[in-house]
Amino acid sequence: MARKTGEFERIARILAPLARDFPGAYGLTDDAAVITTEPRCDLVVTTDTIVAGVHYTGDEAPSAVARKLLRVNLSDLAAMGATPLAYTLNLALPSDIDDAWLEDFADGLRRDQHEFGIDLAGGDSVSTPGAVTLTLTAFGRVRRGRALLRSGARPGDIVHVSGTIGDAAFGLLVAKDALGGLDEADRSALVRRYRLPEPRIALGAGLVGLASAAIDVSDGLVADLGHIAETSQCGAVVEAARVPRSGAARRVLQERADLLEAGLAGGDDYELLITAPAAAGADIASLADELSIPVTAIGRIVEEPGIRIIDADGRRLSLRSRGWAHG
Amino acid sequence: MARKTGEFERIARILAPLARDFPGAYGLTDDAAVITTEPRCDLVVTTDTIVAGVHYTGDEAPSAVARKLLRVNLSDLAAMGATPLAYTLNLALPSDIDDAWLEDFADGLRRDQHEFGIDLAGGDSVSTPGAVTLTLTAFGRVRRGRALLRSGARPGDIVHVSGTIGDAAFGLLVAKDALGGLDEADRSALVRRYRLPEPRIALGAGLVGLASAAIDVSDGLVADLGHIAETSQCGAVVEAARVPRSGAARRVLQERADLLEAGLAGGDDYELLITAPAAAGADIASLADELSIPVTAIGRIVEEPGIRIIDADGRRLSLRSRGWAHG
Repeated sequence: MARKTGEFERIARILAPLARDFPGAYGLTDDAAVITTEPRCDLVVTTDTIVAGVHYTGDEAPSAVARKLLRVNLSDLAAMGATPLAYTLNLALPSDIDDAWLEDFADGLRRDQHEFGIDLAGGDSVSTPGAVTLTLTAFGRVRRGRALLRSGARPGDIVHVSGTIGDAAFGLLVAKDALGGLDEADRSALVRRYRLPEPRIALGAGLVGLASAAIDVSDGLVADLGHIAETSQCGAVVEAARVPRSGAARRVLQERADLLEAGLAGGDDYELLITAPAAAGADIASLADELSIPVTAIGRIVEEPGIRIIDADGRRLSLRSRGWAHG
Repeated sequence: MARKTGEFERIARILAPLARDFPGAYGLTDDAAVITTEPRCDLVVTTDTIVAGVHYTGDEAPSAVARKLLRVNLSDLAAMGATPLAYTLNLALPSDIDDAWLEDFADGLRRDQHEFGIDLAGGDSVSTPGAVTLTLTAFGRVRRGRALLRSGARPGDIVHVSGTIGDAAFGLLVAKDALGGLDEADRSALVRRYRLPEPRIALGAGLVGLASAAIDVSDGLVADLGHIAETSQCGAVVEAARVPRSGAARRVLQERADLLEAGLAGGDDYELLITAPAAAGADIASLADELSIPVTAIGRIVEEPGIRIIDADGRRLSLRSRGWAHG
């Protein structure tokens, strides 16, 4: 919090408790923060910016916005195999943001800091004539040279995914009142997956040395597997029927076959998409067991570029403009 | 650049050359960047957000905006005694920002990256319905536990400042056409000090082990010395006549005695304000000589809280609402 005057001292006062347990934050009163790294570790840095009205509707509680922003960055750390260390926060705030907003925002961060073992290290606060614009930059550590990258997938590797896929896309539809016919428990389970991602920190850290590549599912399973394939200069085949589904998502798909695409290509699940040599399969299964996180093999890496989705009979499903169909 | 689609692939293409020489940036194509730190070093992190229409007028060339944003962050690293390593960049851009704007912005960064030995490591780009909002986060390294802090000043320490003070405040007045009676050379020298700060990287690094506290002059000499005093729980006395002035600033003050306050309290000089035990004076003078950067003793740290400015006869000048007067 380099340049705070008047109003911004007030903001720093509300945020300072979030930095209390991080010595290198110096209570947000110095020019910069100091992060002590460990020998034989690399520092991993990831950052996201979100804008009110673009990345969230404004209906959400400030604490929910804060938690999602922190968690999507933690998910990026997880996808690199990194363990969280600290984060910085940049707030561009219009004049109608009051103490109550800030306190609720800080409260969301406080809860997740505790859950994920991360502290605020510094940041900046400025006025804006525009919309609330929030930047969070998260720092983690990983064994030197061992960060999980998108580029390490090789033909023959198995494609795995953690948790279940499609819930966030369906949750967004529920939140927009565009998906009926579900009971209240299913509705709230799906919306929660959209609103409050679960970064797979322990799984990511455990995959260091096992996985050949990893990414978190933010753009969607198909698009994110495409990122791995493109960066690794290969392709992938996914069996649609193996993609793991929650009970709620299964019930959605039973009623609405037209939502299969949304359930494969929709974003925001923040699960880990992993490639690994077949020989690592047993170790990955043990890790998943140990952490009680389901990890499912859904396909394999191939030489031919592109992502192919196949049905249970091996027939190719091709992406149309608005849906998947046998092609 | 975690989540880029369509338009943002275009932005990443324009920015990617800035990350070419930094292996841990992975060409801006991975979930996060990896920064390899050295053993026995701490990582220093500083970040600033600027908004069009608030922190710059919009008249400036995009390259000038980019360079100032990078340089103010480098100045914060200098004030911590840190050597630059890498930076991340978050762009929230309205739809009227075109390739020409982005290319000029990137060109400014490219020039300063080369000058200061720093590379782009990652970032994020998003759309905004509001004003251009730019966040830059800079990383540097410093010997473990040796970062220069605001909190180390002790009564008896000498207060030093690098370069000359007041130029940026006068430069802002010139840029606003609010300061006449200067020749063209003086006008452009002052405006340049406002537009293009000179981060004192080598000086900051050399002061590690010599200075007891340091800060960069961004809020203004008086305010920033106040930050050191407050954080160090002491006060300071500054002799106004010792504050180093450029030729142009001397000529301003000869004509306009009413601008003495602006010349002491005005911000944006981005010089280093340093405190050090008197015994370190000779080493600081040698360092200044070696780097050809003037460093001037302007006062001393005292026990009594607050900042006192005294004239050549030891009489106190007190800050009024709009000016300095004998008090």
